[in-house]
Amino acid sequence: MLRNFQSVFRVLGRQTRQYSVKSDHAVWSLGRLNHVAIAVPDLEAATALYRDILGATVSEPQGLPEHGVTTVFVNLDNTKLELLHPLGDNSPIAGFLKKNASGGIHHICIEVNNIDAAVQQMKEKNIRCLSKETRIGAHGKPVMFLHPKDCNGVLVELEQE
Amino acid sequence: MLRNFQSVFRVLGRQTRQYSVKSDHAVWSLGRLNHVAIAVPDLEAATALYRDILGATVSEPQGLPEHGVTTVFVNLDNTKLELLHPLGDNSPIAGFLKKNASGGIHHICIEVNNIDAAVQQMKEKNIRCLSKETRIGAHGKPVMFLHPKDCNGVLVELEQE
Repeated sequence: MLRNFQSVFRVLGRQTRQYSVKSDHAVWSLGRLNHVAIAVPDLEAATALYRDILGATVSEPQGLPEHGVTTVFVNLDNTKLELLHPLGDNSPIAGFLKKNASGGIHHICIEVNNIDAAVQQMKEKNIRCLSKETRIGAHGKPVMFLHPKDCNGVLVELEQE
Repeated sequence: MLRNFQSVFRVLGRQTRQYSVKSDHAVWSLGRLNHVAIAVPDLEAATALYRDILGATVSEPQGLPEHGVTTVFVNLDNTKLELLHPLGDNSPIAGFLKKNASGGIHHICIEVNNIDAAVQQMKEKNIRCLSKETRIGAHGKPVMFLHPKDCNGVLVELEQE
């Protein structure tokens, strides 16, 4: 019996030490790079570059009217590129393509294992979030975009893994 | 003896079929996304964002005078981000930071299993390369940068895996 208690305390002791070491990151952590999103003025030409010249496997175009984009996924061995083309009148990438006529990298998306805890910490650390609450992203999971001015000029999307 | 010849022809036949299916990509293929390179005006602040706020494991800064940059690697589960800061007078990212004062994504690097064959095909397909021959990149392997105007506004680095 005593031995069992000692085991429990040893386990708890380990957890406590781990907690103190990991500090704010005990309840959430950063995971995989889900994708690199590239805004493109010509979706067919961009798809042809990755499929026919670079030899990647690509998806069929997928219209996402609620997100204002048509996407093509380019599968790499460890992650994917997402080609984005404006769809509809209020596309969130229309302004980007006006400034960057040839296209360009629009954002990177990194997975987190607890989006709510991650967003709470961003707010505590004064990293501005682009919406008040998480929204359901293009993959059907909660996401949050972080302000580029607080992330070295990079639009960072956090996505629930 | 006849059976042995038949085996050889069967094998050759298979190779020929595979070659004809894979076309130009029989001799090289695209692999992993090696890294996303982010040019940053303040390397310490950028490192702190990824290490202290986003909780990633990061490397010590590494000066690469021959490439005109100091780099910090941010390890994600499946790939890495490379934070780049100018080093010396002729840094290749100085101009980029002049145009993008907050920083931004400078390039993406994708591995290939045969850089010479890949570069030859880029030239045949009129994808402009930024140097005549491959050069030894920051990881000690041959690399080639492709012209952003031919890649949807994205500077793409191909690296021998």
